Amino acid sequence: MPEFDYIAWLRSRTPADPRVPVGPGDDCAVLAPAGRPLLVTTDLLTDGTDFILAEVGPRAAGRKAMAVNLSDVAAMAGVPTAAVVAVALPRGGGRSLGEELYVGIREVADEFGVAVVGGDTNSWEGALVVTVTLLGEATARGPVLRSGAKPGDWVMLTGPVGGSIRGRHLTPTPRVREALRLHNLVDLHAMIDLSDGLAADLNHVLEESRCGAVLDAAAIPIHADAVELAKTSGKTPLAHALGDGEDFELLFTVSAADGAALLRDQPVPGVTLAKVGECVGEGLWLEEGGARRPLAPAGWVHEL
Amino acid sequence: MPEFDYIAWLRSRTPADPRVPVGPGDDCAVLAPAGRPLLVTTDLLTDGTDFILAEVGPRAAGRKAMAVNLSDVAAMAGVPTAAVVAVALPRGGGRSLGEELYVGIREVADEFGVAVVGGDTNSWEGALVVTVTLLGEATARGPVLRSGAKPGDWVMLTGPVGGSIRGRHLTPTPRVREALRLHNLVDLHAMIDLSDGLAADLNHVLEESRCGAVLDAAAIPIHADAVELAKTSGKTPLAHALGDGEDFELLFTVSAADGAALLRDQPVPGVTLAKVGECVGEGLWLEEGGARRPLAPAGWVHEL
Repeated sequence: MPEFDYIAWLRSRTPADPRVPVGPGDDCAVLAPAGRPLLVTTDLLTDGTDFILAEVGPRAAGRKAMAVNLSDVAAMAGVPTAAVVAVALPRGGGRSLGEELYVGIREVADEFGVAVVGGDTNSWEGALVVTVTLLGEATARGPVLRSGAKPGDWVMLTGPVGGSIRGRHLTPTPRVREALRLHNLVDLHAMIDLSDGLAADLNHVLEESRCGAVLDAAAIPIHADAVELAKTSGKTPLAHALGDGEDFELLFTVSAADGAALLRDQPVPGVTLAKVGECVGEGLWLEEGGARRPLAPAGWVHEL
Repeated sequence: MPEFDYIAWLRSRTPADPRVPVGPGDDCAVLAPAGRPLLVTTDLLTDGTDFILAEVGPRAAGRKAMAVNLSDVAAMAGVPTAAVVAVALPRGGGRSLGEELYVGIREVADEFGVAVVGGDTNSWEGALVVTVTLLGEATARGPVLRSGAKPGDWVMLTGPVGGSIRGRHLTPTPRVREALRLHNLVDLHAMIDLSDGLAADLNHVLEESRCGAVLDAAAIPIHADAVELAKTSGKTPLAHALGDGEDFELLFTVSAADGAALLRDQPVPGVTLAKVGECVGEGLWLEEGGARRPLAPAGWVHEL
């Protein structure tokens, strides 16, 4: 039994949304029937694992909770529509913690046209927990799955990777618009958002697609954060780019012809598309200086 | 980064579900378009608040997490369809904790034809947290809201209330089938499931409907648990029936003519419908021994 209903409070400050035909007082939110296949994703974030509340504050935690879900809908080239938010607030955190959390959630939701339609507010003796469940719809071209990569495909990225722990992991820009633009331009064979890391997430695609891939070390766009981190971490910038998580860029595969056109035309505003490798029959490989070595999904190289 | 993916494990043991056209490896679950208005509800349950894990075990916690969401869909007279499950498992709880939790979730989901289509598994330093988000569809008659009660309506219940803390709160039977049967038989003006308590939840309906109600003390079906609890609590059985929460019976209002027919015919298998009061212009009242006194939403009686 919360002493204060943050969701009701927040919704009372939200202009009436035509997509939400019933009041906040009902047991379920009611949404218009989905015209297209429905997408559903949920992410639970905890203080101490996904963010350090004492360092970043509740607004940043709220922003991340919404953004990581949006990134999952982006990975399917879907259109996000509505979200529900469930929170466990630490007792004694005060009203402002819940309010600031929801301000962060709403800022990102508003930016992507997502209606926050309901939720569940709890207080407890533990640390902050926030679960966002996001609904979306596939476009007329259908959802992009992980399972469609084929040998000969180009493996491409929407941006540089590595070192997100220096701060970027808290403020990802979900590639929702970029995914829709790509989906509209070319036949996306497979797509995933980079949450576990380049090598690990590529491996997820390869497992679902039952094929392999070779990454070209020299072609991987390495983020400045990876370079900075490598100065003290004892790892190379490339190792950070391959192994670090929470970049939230998109990795996708397309035919070589589509890939070449994307690389040449760079038709997606705000991002530089990069070719980082090609799909092959089997295995996960890294090509560096003319040598091809096995790459572990965790991002490290097997010396042969 | 969980050491073991319980959701993948559980899904690998679940027969292929035609409602889930894509594999467990994708970023979102994909569901067929909703033919009818879509219902969405989410509940976050924590160890120490909603259950005591050390006393009841993870399977009971899982059962409750699914059941309370089903009760919300029942309150709208909806058909539950699919759920996603996000958990934060205490580190060192071992694989069996997550597995047993999901067994409980699946048992109740299966009983009501709900597909568990995805989720998010985390481990952390805190206590067990489980968030279930349940989707459903309204029937052709539309969802039943809280806002349709009118003066003159009968206020009815699907079963006896009070004292659920003695154990029933862990094993509610969501009134999904009963709600659909009632919705098919009569014009349900307003409905809610009893989670906060009879007086509090009736008050939610009255606030949304902008009317009042008089409860008839002698007509309220008091559960044997309320009688038992009253022996040691210092409260009356009636006070427990009015004030205790988590009964998960349905409270609904119908026209007097429909109410009389329901009371006479008792057309809902497995439950005994009771008339507990009538809607009036304003206020929340308790009638007892010929006297009408104001009733607080928390369930206690204002002495005049």
